[in-house]
Amino acid sequence: MTLLEGVLKMNIIRTVKKMKQTVRKLIHNRQEIGFVPTMGYLHEGHLALIEKARQENDIVIVSIFVNPLQFAPNEDYEQYPRDEERDKKRAEAAGVDILFIPDAKDIYPSQMKIDIKVKDRIDVLCGRSRPGHFDGVVTILFKLFNIVLPDKTYFGMKDAQQLAVVEAFITDLNFPIELIGVQTVREKNGLAKSSRNVYLSEHEREEAAWIYKGLQNGQQLIIDGERNPIKIIKKVEDVIRNKTNGSIDYVELLSFPSLKPVKSLNSQVILACAVYFNDARLIDNIIMDQDGNIKDSIHLNVFNYK
Amino acid sequence: MTLLEGVLKMNIIRTVKKMKQTVRKLIHNRQEIGFVPTMGYLHEGHLALIEKARQENDIVIVSIFVNPLQFAPNEDYEQYPRDEERDKKRAEAAGVDILFIPDAKDIYPSQMKIDIKVKDRIDVLCGRSRPGHFDGVVTILFKLFNIVLPDKTYFGMKDAQQLAVVEAFITDLNFPIELIGVQTVREKNGLAKSSRNVYLSEHEREEAAWIYKGLQNGQQLIIDGERNPIKIIKKVEDVIRNKTNGSIDYVELLSFPSLKPVKSLNSQVILACAVYFNDARLIDNIIMDQDGNIKDSIHLNVFNYK
Repeated sequence: MTLLEGVLKMNIIRTVKKMKQTVRKLIHNRQEIGFVPTMGYLHEGHLALIEKARQENDIVIVSIFVNPLQFAPNEDYEQYPRDEERDKKRAEAAGVDILFIPDAKDIYPSQMKIDIKVKDRIDVLCGRSRPGHFDGVVTILFKLFNIVLPDKTYFGMKDAQQLAVVEAFITDLNFPIELIGVQTVREKNGLAKSSRNVYLSEHEREEAAWIYKGLQNGQQLIIDGERNPIKIIKKVEDVIRNKTNGSIDYVELLSFPSLKPVKSLNSQVILACAVYFNDARLIDNIIMDQDGNIKDSIHLNVFNYK
Repeated sequence: MTLLEGVLKMNIIRTVKKMKQTVRKLIHNRQEIGFVPTMGYLHEGHLALIEKARQENDIVIVSIFVNPLQFAPNEDYEQYPRDEERDKKRAEAAGVDILFIPDAKDIYPSQMKIDIKVKDRIDVLCGRSRPGHFDGVVTILFKLFNIVLPDKTYFGMKDAQQLAVVEAFITDLNFPIELIGVQTVREKNGLAKSSRNVYLSEHEREEAAWIYKGLQNGQQLIIDGERNPIKIIKKVEDVIRNKTNGSIDYVELLSFPSLKPVKSLNSQVILACAVYFNDARLIDNIIMDQDGNIKDSIHLNVFNYK
């Protein structure tokens, strides 16, 4: 963005006002904006989103905001890992043009007078044990979308329920934004990258790799022609129970993105699970077609008005 | 918009898709969009909004959509007056560039998965007797704002509570839209123009003029230095009771746009009332400063990021 001593430098913006001013200029210059909202502590999963946004847009904006509204009182808002200096370096190295780091007081200057609630796609998966969580997610995204005015926005497939809720929300309210889901990035052993992995002990980190292997076992059944969700789910549960000391919260097989139970596999599905370890609750999933095939990225809404 | 046989002709758009395509082109051409959302049956009050939008924007878009979501089951959704042919002529004569007349199925293709509720500014005035009404108003505006992407939007001061709720909603969710309230247009006798005036008998139409005269009596007390809300409200009630057979639903004096009770006048206020006649419930108000002065239009949110 800013040409400083011959070096293309990332802009850091800390106020809503400045962000809005900047976006208005970008739009006037007809620059397409790709947006990656994050809670910071950027890992390779975020970098994959940024890379995808980099490929498809003129300008890449990343926000870092740990949104208090999406944490329940018993959750880890205060403890959520933060490292702004590292995030800045990683974002700049990844080719981010603008890093938006607003203050909570600037985002929520007063008690909200409008309440936004998600009514569908929430009584399954993580939504069941995190009441109100997606209301908070959608509320902050509302504000960020209206501030950043992106053409495209990128979310990881790891938070698949979030991706499904954002799809409902963008479609329902006619946001002029394309939604792209990007494949989960994994450790060599298969463990999905997550900011919360720092909570794992070294031993747990090894065990946790079996979460993905369990899901892959389920996927293999689908590839082999199994169509009965109960058998597929049981396979995943067995692997995780046998190979880890984690406690299974759920293993579910649902249509995607509508997140409805499937009786027999005949559309895009998600095989997902959540597992408690001592200090972390890990989630993972595989989104695949009815034959078990996966994709690097998925466009969740068709944007046919250009 | 379209130069047809040398005549500048109004465009009529009936689908969300076409509207979005058109808006995208306008924005790329850096044209500022002024937006007047209506439920049709255009009267001089609407035309005043259009005229104001005409003065301040490159392109004026008017929507006509009788929004089922903002009518309660006992209200007049089916009976709400509609006359598309007359609306088209009036809009074109007023200099509207684009008339957007979407279908209910295009606006609400399926059950909404996101619920939007207004939490503040609704337990007063009309909101008290119309539970859920403003949730419906805000939901359709959400969609229309995201489809039309206006720079500025215009609402009549007659629906003052709506104006206050829209202010909360635009500010709360960071919509990049300026909100302008435009003064109520009146019959010669003072009766506020309203699509619902067609429900009045000739005799009621004359009597109903006393609603505004009652409010003006209250305003005169303020101009004369009265600071006690109770006395001001009583004055209005007395005039309406003595001069009409209508039944008063409420007379209230509140801060504006926050719509909180005022103990003593020291800020912008609204003196508002609702009165039932046989087949119509009429509302009217005067928005004024603490000394009783009124304005032709008010900017409700400061838009300082250009």
